[in-house]
Amino acid sequence: MSLPRIGVTLGDPGGIGPEIVVKALLRWPELPRAHYVLFGTRELLDREEKALGVSLSASSFVESDTDDRTRFFLQSVPVSLAAVGKGRPSAENGKASFEFFRASVEAARAGRIQALVTAPISKLSWSLGGIDFRGHTEYLETFYPDAIMTFWSEKLVVALFSHHLPLKEALTRIKKDALTKFVRTLGEGVEKARPGIHHYLMSGLNPHAGENGLLGREEIEEITPAVEEVRTTGLDISGPHPPDVVFRLAYGRPRRIVIALYHDQGLSPFKLEAFDSGVNVTLGMPFIRSSPDHGTAFDIAGKNLANPQSMAEAIRLAAELSPSVL
Amino acid sequence: MSLPRIGVTLGDPGGIGPEIVVKALLRWPELPRAHYVLFGTRELLDREEKALGVSLSASSFVESDTDDRTRFFLQSVPVSLAAVGKGRPSAENGKASFEFFRASVEAARAGRIQALVTAPISKLSWSLGGIDFRGHTEYLETFYPDAIMTFWSEKLVVALFSHHLPLKEALTRIKKDALTKFVRTLGEGVEKARPGIHHYLMSGLNPHAGENGLLGREEIEEITPAVEEVRTTGLDISGPHPPDVVFRLAYGRPRRIVIALYHDQGLSPFKLEAFDSGVNVTLGMPFIRSSPDHGTAFDIAGKNLANPQSMAEAIRLAAELSPSVL
Repeated sequence: MSLPRIGVTLGDPGGIGPEIVVKALLRWPELPRAHYVLFGTRELLDREEKALGVSLSASSFVESDTDDRTRFFLQSVPVSLAAVGKGRPSAENGKASFEFFRASVEAARAGRIQALVTAPISKLSWSLGGIDFRGHTEYLETFYPDAIMTFWSEKLVVALFSHHLPLKEALTRIKKDALTKFVRTLGEGVEKARPGIHHYLMSGLNPHAGENGLLGREEIEEITPAVEEVRTTGLDISGPHPPDVVFRLAYGRPRRIVIALYHDQGLSPFKLEAFDSGVNVTLGMPFIRSSPDHGTAFDIAGKNLANPQSMAEAIRLAAELSPSVL
Repeated sequence: MSLPRIGVTLGDPGGIGPEIVVKALLRWPELPRAHYVLFGTRELLDREEKALGVSLSASSFVESDTDDRTRFFLQSVPVSLAAVGKGRPSAENGKASFEFFRASVEAARAGRIQALVTAPISKLSWSLGGIDFRGHTEYLETFYPDAIMTFWSEKLVVALFSHHLPLKEALTRIKKDALTKFVRTLGEGVEKARPGIHHYLMSGLNPHAGENGLLGREEIEEITPAVEEVRTTGLDISGPHPPDVVFRLAYGRPRRIVIALYHDQGLSPFKLEAFDSGVNVTLGMPFIRSSPDHGTAFDIAGKNLANPQSMAEAIRLAAELSPSVL
């Protein structure tokens, strides 16, 4: 039987993406037993391997060909990349990294890969290249409107009810029906990715979770009714908890998942705790997509200084959360 | 010369306050060299000492009497406390803990003590007892409207621009002039408490600090202008930083102070990091007031299970931040 296939994009050619992909994959004996299919160009991969003085010996990806002895494949994506231009955003790199990603999503949608790991892209490069999406997740949402952004570390798992919205606008989205739908989709996504019992901790919005309405009404009018409705479906959920307590309640308990109501409610505590090792995981799609929780790090790109730890974690987690892979 | 005097309230008689005060003060050889003036009742102190099997041998507080050999004093506060009722909020305990606190503030305002440390009160007890303040800070604000709530741990220092407000209302307070005034008062308070160079990191409000206006306008219209205005006065300040990055920038650098724009923006990361050891410090008053960053812990009150670490830290920090004490 053929091994499962995990797609890995090279990310923005001017950032640390290609470097951390190569470095992480060189640790393959510690990584899940799978075929790794890189999405990029042969020139870009060659250049990175040469700079690092190593080689993955990646074969060209032909689906029928993936015998168990070959570990690495390259799906060559046709883009024009005259000069890589390390260390800064560029239109050309924006277009290229978007095309790598688009090809990888197409492969995942077609079942040619069973999970997808994306290296960092630059929003500024995308914007310079005329790519209108804010990031990976926003593009995935065009196919899967219920896609959910979650963040995983050894100590914490956090799901974001909303992400790239002005805070004032994010607050207007906090409505019972939308929350109920979100938590159900999250529960299904988590159950599919990691079967077994999970406990969900809903964060409140206001100080002390509103203190019985004295410090805000959203908990009474929207959040508590959503928690109660979801609970009737059998989901193990508690809250709304005070936002400054809920993360501590979940800390170090890997089956507890915090539901944050907006981007920084979840990410400020998460990134303080999981600075180097966090992984961003998109749930609610037919396949898992993960990525390291850091950016292109233009300041150290091309200097062989990048730490592949978060990328290796992203690869490991993508496999762990894909029952069709493990 | 007489030693400086640090006031310490006993807090809610039904909570862990009296226990952690006695336990912390028994470590007096490690604490700042000072007279400690307890605010409570003789009965309450006796009962706690008996329960713990120890004695502080506190003398009655008569100001002219504080010779250097006596370490502990009791300022007896006249309240009716028929039964202490450990482990639950009560009107009687609410009234008593408010009177302890009121007497201590009076002593601090009159210069009879040089710093004040408060043990936890229960907002519910206060409310049952007809006390209309949300907490210690709100009472202090009636005398010192510019009082500022800050949180200190070994790794992080965070100041809150607003605290007990519904989030939607807190957002409407984020205006250039109010922010400018706040940061100036904060800078003066910190300089008075701990002279020397500090660097202030202003948090943004929106994801990625608004990403040049794409994700919200407050950074452009209010926060950046406030930062720039304050900088002209010579304060070393940067930002607005992305809210999910700013805490990491300050982490482990004790001269860096994060300015959080609302209660949980500051306290969610802070309490995740400093679960057991955080100290709440009120700045912007003629004296420093500190308190442990935890509550009455009714569930373990009266069981000799409470950890006095945060209370000891609060005592140490109150002295460290009071140049008139150290």
